Amino acid sequence: MEQGLRVAAAVSEARQWDRLMELAKIGAIPGDGVNRQALTALDRAARRLAIGWAEAAGATVTVDEAANLWFRLEGRDPSAAPVITGSHMDSQPAGGRFDGIYGVVAGLEVLSALRDSGVTLERPLEVVAWTNEEGSRFSPGCMGSMAWAGTKPVSAFAEIADAEGVTFGAALAEHLQAEADLPRRPLGGKAHAYIEAHIEQGPTLESEGLAIGIVTGIQGSRWFTVTITGASAHAGTTPVSLRRDALQAAMRAIAALNALTADPTDVLRFTVGSFLAEPGSSNSVAGRVRFTIDLRHPDDALLMEKGNAITALVQEAAYPCTAEIEERFTAAPLSFDTGILDGIEQATQALGLSSLRMPSGAFHDAQLVARAVPSAMIFVPSRDGISHNPAEFTSSSQLAAGTRALAAALVRQAA
Amino acid sequence: MEQGLRVAAAVSEARQWDRLMELAKIGAIPGDGVNRQALTALDRAARRLAIGWAEAAGATVTVDEAANLWFRLEGRDPSAAPVITGSHMDSQPAGGRFDGIYGVVAGLEVLSALRDSGVTLERPLEVVAWTNEEGSRFSPGCMGSMAWAGTKPVSAFAEIADAEGVTFGAALAEHLQAEADLPRRPLGGKAHAYIEAHIEQGPTLESEGLAIGIVTGIQGSRWFTVTITGASAHAGTTPVSLRRDALQAAMRAIAALNALTADPTDVLRFTVGSFLAEPGSSNSVAGRVRFTIDLRHPDDALLMEKGNAITALVQEAAYPCTAEIEERFTAAPLSFDTGILDGIEQATQALGLSSLRMPSGAFHDAQLVARAVPSAMIFVPSRDGISHNPAEFTSSSQLAAGTRALAAALVRQAA
Repeated sequence: MEQGLRVAAAVSEARQWDRLMELAKIGAIPGDGVNRQALTALDRAARRLAIGWAEAAGATVTVDEAANLWFRLEGRDPSAAPVITGSHMDSQPAGGRFDGIYGVVAGLEVLSALRDSGVTLERPLEVVAWTNEEGSRFSPGCMGSMAWAGTKPVSAFAEIADAEGVTFGAALAEHLQAEADLPRRPLGGKAHAYIEAHIEQGPTLESEGLAIGIVTGIQGSRWFTVTITGASAHAGTTPVSLRRDALQAAMRAIAALNALTADPTDVLRFTVGSFLAEPGSSNSVAGRVRFTIDLRHPDDALLMEKGNAITALVQEAAYPCTAEIEERFTAAPLSFDTGILDGIEQATQALGLSSLRMPSGAFHDAQLVARAVPSAMIFVPSRDGISHNPAEFTSSSQLAAGTRALAAALVRQAA
Repeated sequence: MEQGLRVAAAVSEARQWDRLMELAKIGAIPGDGVNRQALTALDRAARRLAIGWAEAAGATVTVDEAANLWFRLEGRDPSAAPVITGSHMDSQPAGGRFDGIYGVVAGLEVLSALRDSGVTLERPLEVVAWTNEEGSRFSPGCMGSMAWAGTKPVSAFAEIADAEGVTFGAALAEHLQAEADLPRRPLGGKAHAYIEAHIEQGPTLESEGLAIGIVTGIQGSRWFTVTITGASAHAGTTPVSLRRDALQAAMRAIAALNALTADPTDVLRFTVGSFLAEPGSSNSVAGRVRFTIDLRHPDDALLMEKGNAITALVQEAAYPCTAEIEERFTAAPLSFDTGILDGIEQATQALGLSSLRMPSGAFHDAQLVARAVPSAMIFVPSRDGISHNPAEFTSSSQLAAGTRALAAALVRQAA
């Protein structure tokens, strides 16, 4: 741990913050926001800044056929499988200054800190900027990490078009042409470990006054659409006892779902975000209601049990209305590597940083990378839990603490 | 009551049904529906049919400046204040064959039955077809009865335009020109009593197997819009305990309102018909919800008490979200004339017809007329409670029973 602490001590809060603020100018939007879409000229300008900083830290720069950008610092054993860190540099259309880009800048800061501290690692350390994580310009997201991990070939995304009709294939070709001066490296490969630093995008660390989230995995999701059918009727002439009121049935169904999903540990997440009533007239009883269920939990068995109970529960609660429940999306929970998690925890303890083991509520590149490489993530607090918004904020010192934990954890894997 | 029973016995179920079916052809739409808007050529064609039947029954025909159409059968004392019955001949855009028009045809049937039975009344009997009750072409509805009762002058509606930009004033002028052959009578005047027959437009009579609704009044209404403000958040990253979920707050508010408005007697009507959640994304916690409250009851004190409790109750239930409650519309309950109601009840008993005293959930011309003349209404059952829909249906025998009760009740007032 001594080497790790030396590198962590060389992390410069000011340098890291200045780099983030310089990057935030590229695609800046009002209210301290950023709009920097994947494979655009703005994306390339931001990457050129990062390339300069990486080269100054002694790293070599390469790009792969998915336009993932790689910065590599050799270790004592160039043939050893590398340790990788990184995240993404694209943003939401009305995004903030930290989502994704922090993980890349933190990786660059570790490169600089290694150089400044004079520590040499056994394994190579690589910092990566994955292509199109947000999926805002080209949907779905995580294309770069998906291609790298072998989940899908790059060619699978070629025909996907942005809002202007430009295909991912065309944008990628233009991009790689603009970075033709960078050596090309093969897509994929072996690695020893992957650790991604990211803002939490939720309020837990801030509300508990903690510095570091040790991300144990990415929770599973099950998404449903519920359609309740009753009978529309005149609000003035129809006695309540004779109604088949789809809105009142939906109320009963949601009350039953609240009971089903009640969790004293506050880990399970149940959300009804969309709710449509028809005909939607103030003096008509609703004849049909459609609402969504977003159910998430890190434990697969629990997620299955709760999700599987939904249909019978909703249909019973909806009576005398009828209910149809359709499952639109399912993603099993992912658990990160326990060895890496233990290493992160030991690093935070050695650094005197408070921490919490917690699942990630959102998706990340690490979810894809973990299929190919032992992986984990480090979270830093998000003010008010706000993300995907110009108001997204994490303080300079909170970001530096996260990077120190990342540095120590990476050194532990690579030493 | 003997005279009344003689006239009731002369009511012809077949003649009345044939007239209704002949009228239903004028403006017929698929599925047995009718679209016959006020002051159109279709409206005039239907009125010409009614005029022919009224003249055949010995009635004189006049029209007033609001285009209300009058059929009058003189009694022994031409100077006595008349007894009036009637309803409207316009329909909803996708309306049925009975709403409104039944009340006019029932009145015509009483005229025919009087002639057939040879009974002469003391007072004049007048059948009226009020102009534009539905308010579908020109909003608001009940313009004819409103003008007749003196609530508003006809000129107040002159500039109101239909969807094609035709003003009520222009349509009325064109209409009166087309009926220039009919003698004009003054708008307004004194009357002894007004009884309107109408389909129930609700399921109560059918579900209880009853023939006649003795309508005690028109219930009062209070309409509110509730806006609940919380905070939108990521459904995956935000723990449930830290959310200010506007949709869940609305659930709690509606549960509290259900408790507030619970009524074992099933008279109070509480409806949430419109419900909008923002941003309305399945994986975002709702930051804002807007829903409507439609509260109705025949008792003014109870309506005031329940309605006045809403704001505090919703605000408490919505916590930690905030709630704003706006009252959009208030109409005090109206009670019909007890003497006329008693007369209707005695008529139904004498005729051996089952009946129920009940308030009207919907608005009717009688609500306006009652401000100038002692008034009441008679309801006949609506199949499945359906109205304002081509599927609207009441059987020929149910309609005839209603007309017999109407006949006996009118004779009682006019004898």
